[in-house]
Amino acid sequence: MPEPTPPAWALIVHGGAKIIASDQAAAHTAGVLAAVERAGALLAAGGTALDAVETAVRLLEGDPTFNAGFGAVLNSDGVVELDASIMDGRTLGIGAVGAVQGVRHPISVARMMLPHTAILLVGEGALRFAKENGGEVCPPEQMIAPGSPGAREPDTVGCVALDRAGHIACGLSTGGLTGKRPGRVGDSPLPGCGFYADDDRGAAAFSGDGESIARVTLAARVMEGLQGAGPQRALNDALRALERVGGEAGGIVLDRRGRFGCAHTSRNFAVAGASAQARPRAGIDAAALGDLIEND
Amino acid sequence: MPEPTPPAWALIVHGGAKIIASDQAAAHTAGVLAAVERAGALLAAGGTALDAVETAVRLLEGDPTFNAGFGAVLNSDGVVELDASIMDGRTLGIGAVGAVQGVRHPISVARMMLPHTAILLVGEGALRFAKENGGEVCPPEQMIAPGSPGAREPDTVGCVALDRAGHIACGLSTGGLTGKRPGRVGDSPLPGCGFYADDDRGAAAFSGDGESIARVTLAARVMEGLQGAGPQRALNDALRALERVGGEAGGIVLDRRGRFGCAHTSRNFAVAGASAQARPRAGIDAAALGDLIEND
Repeated sequence: MPEPTPPAWALIVHGGAKIIASDQAAAHTAGVLAAVERAGALLAAGGTALDAVETAVRLLEGDPTFNAGFGAVLNSDGVVELDASIMDGRTLGIGAVGAVQGVRHPISVARMMLPHTAILLVGEGALRFAKENGGEVCPPEQMIAPGSPGAREPDTVGCVALDRAGHIACGLSTGGLTGKRPGRVGDSPLPGCGFYADDDRGAAAFSGDGESIARVTLAARVMEGLQGAGPQRALNDALRALERVGGEAGGIVLDRRGRFGCAHTSRNFAVAGASAQARPRAGIDAAALGDLIEND
Repeated sequence: MPEPTPPAWALIVHGGAKIIASDQAAAHTAGVLAAVERAGALLAAGGTALDAVETAVRLLEGDPTFNAGFGAVLNSDGVVELDASIMDGRTLGIGAVGAVQGVRHPISVARMMLPHTAILLVGEGALRFAKENGGEVCPPEQMIAPGSPGAREPDTVGCVALDRAGHIACGLSTGGLTGKRPGRVGDSPLPGCGFYADDDRGAAAFSGDGESIARVTLAARVMEGLQGAGPQRALNDALRALERVGGEAGGIVLDRRGRFGCAHTSRNFAVAGASAQARPRAGIDAAALGDLIEND
C-alpha cells in the first residue's frame, strides 16, 4: 500500500492538561477551536508555521479562560509572572522567556528573540528586552483578570504547526503554578522539556506538571521516538517515563509528514486540530481529534 | 572476554571548553586536579556522588581562574550573574539557578533546592530562595576578582561522579558570556541541554557555546546514545549534532558502569579524572585522561 500523501499543512492547539469543570468545557473548546481556525486559515493561505503558532498562542494568551497571558494565575506575591517559548524547526532557532512580568504577549517577545543570539531571557532582563524591541508592555496589575482567578491546576497552552513549505514550529505560553515562588521557571521555556521542533523529525509541545516534565526531558524523548515510530506511539512511550517521577502531562505532536499525535495522563486536555484535508475540530479530550490520530 | 569490573567510584571534572593561553595552562590544570583530588577522596571514603560534585564545583567557583562564582565574567551592566545546576541520578531530582546575582556558591543554592518542588529559580527569586535557606549571599561587587577579568570565551565548569552505592550525579556552574544581556540564561541550568544524570544510564556535563548546546539538546542526545553505545561514542555522536547550528562544546560523560567519555570541539578543555582504580590525572585536553577513556 503506498504511503498516504502528507497533508499540505497541519496544526494542533491545546489549552492545558488538567481537570476541566463541566461548566468550563464550552469555553475551553471554543477557545482552542478559534485558535485553530485562525491559525489554520493562515496556513491554508501559505503562511509560515512560525506565524501560525504565534497567532494561535496570542489568541489563547488574550483569553482569560486559559492560564497564559491575560488572566493567568498569580504567584505568591500576587503577580502574573509568565513563561513562553517558540521554536523554528528549520533553523532550530529558539526564543523563550521565563518569569517575566508586565508583558501582554510573552509568545511575541519570544518570537522577537529569534534573530538574536540569546535563547532564554528571564525576569527583569526579559522585560527590558521587550521594551527595547517594541514588545507590548503594561503594568503587571493589568494582566489580572476581573474576578481574581481561583486555584487552578498547572497548565500551559501550546501549538505545533507544519506549513506548506514543509517547515515545522511550536509555541507555548503559561502562567505556571498558582502561588508559585517568584522566579520559578517551569518546563515551558526549556528546550527538550516542554517543547522541541525540528523539520527533520517533528514538533512536540507539553502541558502539565512542569517539574516532572523537565526531569524526564519529555520533548527530547518524543524526538528520539520519532526516529523509529509514528507520533502517537512516540508520545505514548515518552509519557510512560513520567511514571518514574510522578505527575501528569498532556502533549501534542506533529511529525514532519504532518501525522498527528495527542495523549494525556490528566483527566482533560482541551485540544483542537486541522489540516489541509481535515476541517477544524475541538474538544476537551484527545478523542476530539478523531481519525486525525492514526495509530501505528 | 569477561566484562571488566565496574570501578567502585569514578569522577571527571572540567574547567571549561575554550582556548587556554599557554601561561594559563598550569593554573587550569592545577585547579581541576585539586577538585578531583578533593572530591575523589570523598568518594573513596564512601561519600555520595552529590557531595562529590558539589565539593568539586565549589572549589572551582572559588578559584578566579575559572568562569564560575568568584571572578566570573561580567554582564553588560558590569555585574557577575551566574547559572548553576545539580542533578541526582537516583531520583532525577534537579536544582538549578539562572541569572542570579549576589550568591557566593550557586552550586550550593542549586543543591539546597533538591528537596523542594521547583527545579529552576531565576534572578531575584533565586536570590530570595538563597537568603531564606541559609545560602551564602554577598554584595554582587564582592564577586568581581581584583584586576577586572578581560574578555573571555564562553565556558562553564562541571563535574560528573559515580559513587560506591552506584548513584550518579552531575553539577555545573558558570558566569556565562562576557558582556551578556542581563537575564540571559545559557545551557548550564537547562536539563537535557548542558547536563543530565540518570542512575540507569549515566551522566553528562557540557561547556561551550550555550545557545548552540541548548538548540540541539546535547545532554539528552548523550543519554539517548548511552542506550546503545559506550560513553565516548555516545559523546562523539552527540557533538556531531552541533554541526547543524555551529558553535563549539566540550563534554564529560560517565556511564552507569563508571566508564569515561571526554571530547571537545574547542581547542582546549581543562579536565581531570580519577577512579577507584586510577589515580588523579589532569591536563588541558581530553588526552590528559589517557587510558581512562576506552573507545568502543
